[in-house]
Amino acid sequence: MTEKELKAIVVDVPDFPKQGIIFKDISGLLSTNEIRSDVVDKLTQPYQGKRIDVVAGIESRGFLFGMLLAQKLKAKFIMIRKPGKLPGPILKTSYELEYGTDSLEIQEKSIKEDDVVLLHDDVLATGGTAAAAITLLKEAGASKVYANFVLELGFLNGRKQFSESTHSILKY
Amino acid sequence: MTEKELKAIVVDVPDFPKQGIIFKDISGLLSTNEIRSDVVDKLTQPYQGKRIDVVAGIESRGFLFGMLLAQKLKAKFIMIRKPGKLPGPILKTSYELEYGTDSLEIQEKSIKEDDVVLLHDDVLATGGTAAAAITLLKEAGASKVYANFVLELGFLNGRKQFSESTHSILKY
Repeated sequence: MTEKELKAIVVDVPDFPKQGIIFKDISGLLSTNEIRSDVVDKLTQPYQGKRIDVVAGIESRGFLFGMLLAQKLKAKFIMIRKPGKLPGPILKTSYELEYGTDSLEIQEKSIKEDDVVLLHDDVLATGGTAAAAITLLKEAGASKVYANFVLELGFLNGRKQFSESTHSILKY
Repeated sequence: MTEKELKAIVVDVPDFPKQGIIFKDISGLLSTNEIRSDVVDKLTQPYQGKRIDVVAGIESRGFLFGMLLAQKLKAKFIMIRKPGKLPGPILKTSYELEYGTDSLEIQEKSIKEDDVVLLHDDVLATGGTAAAAITLLKEAGASKVYANFVLELGFLNGRKQFSESTHSILKY
């Protein structure tokens, strides 16, 4: 499928979750084997022949294609979660939001020293969450992190928040 | 793999998330293609040759194997989420917890009249969440719902909360 065809499946929802925000609803990308497999093929295309030890999906929507990516790349899958949800020992990082702060956690032993990690989430927006996740994965021992997203809101310049190689398949 | 081998991969974490609870950590089941594929084969075994239109995964850990199940069964995948996360129009149901209430939501158009749905979550405990999800799926038009879990805490009698055909692969 072309980028245009895939974009036609993503629905713009104005004023969600709050006034002034246009939410990109990716639900349609989950709907058939054909679409899911095509999304996975495009998401994994840059890593063919490259070493990926771990796919790390960010809760919750990063779990969706994350598990399919792990299967395709024959890699371990790990969860990056919000605070208090993963049993310890855990590693934690906090990051700034527009109002206040938030945190992400991983299990300490989920990454081995020198692992090459593919970080996956559904949307790259301001990049704050992804930057925090990269910090966490490197603290845990990752030697290299690739950043990977279904959608990228290019006008928010999220990929400027980190220096890692970044791949997204639907750019806005 | 045998049930015993898979159970050896699930780690008991005492007193998590609170005192007196033994948390079953399924992270190890996400770690290799061999384990993931085996879990998916066992989860889908009862539905071979049966019609499944939709796999509905409960946020967040139901998204993990849920997407692999949808791919294996060539079904649509939909998300059952906590309140305020899915853009509308949505259907919502509330259910009792030990202290207070909680709610689940799906997108109204995600189920078509007469769809056969496989409801998936990682753990069947008291059954309150699954029962609420089944109510929601039937309100949305599902003609039949199968309930499907990786782990079942049999001593909590969760499957008595609903009359749907229920399948789990690791029983405690």
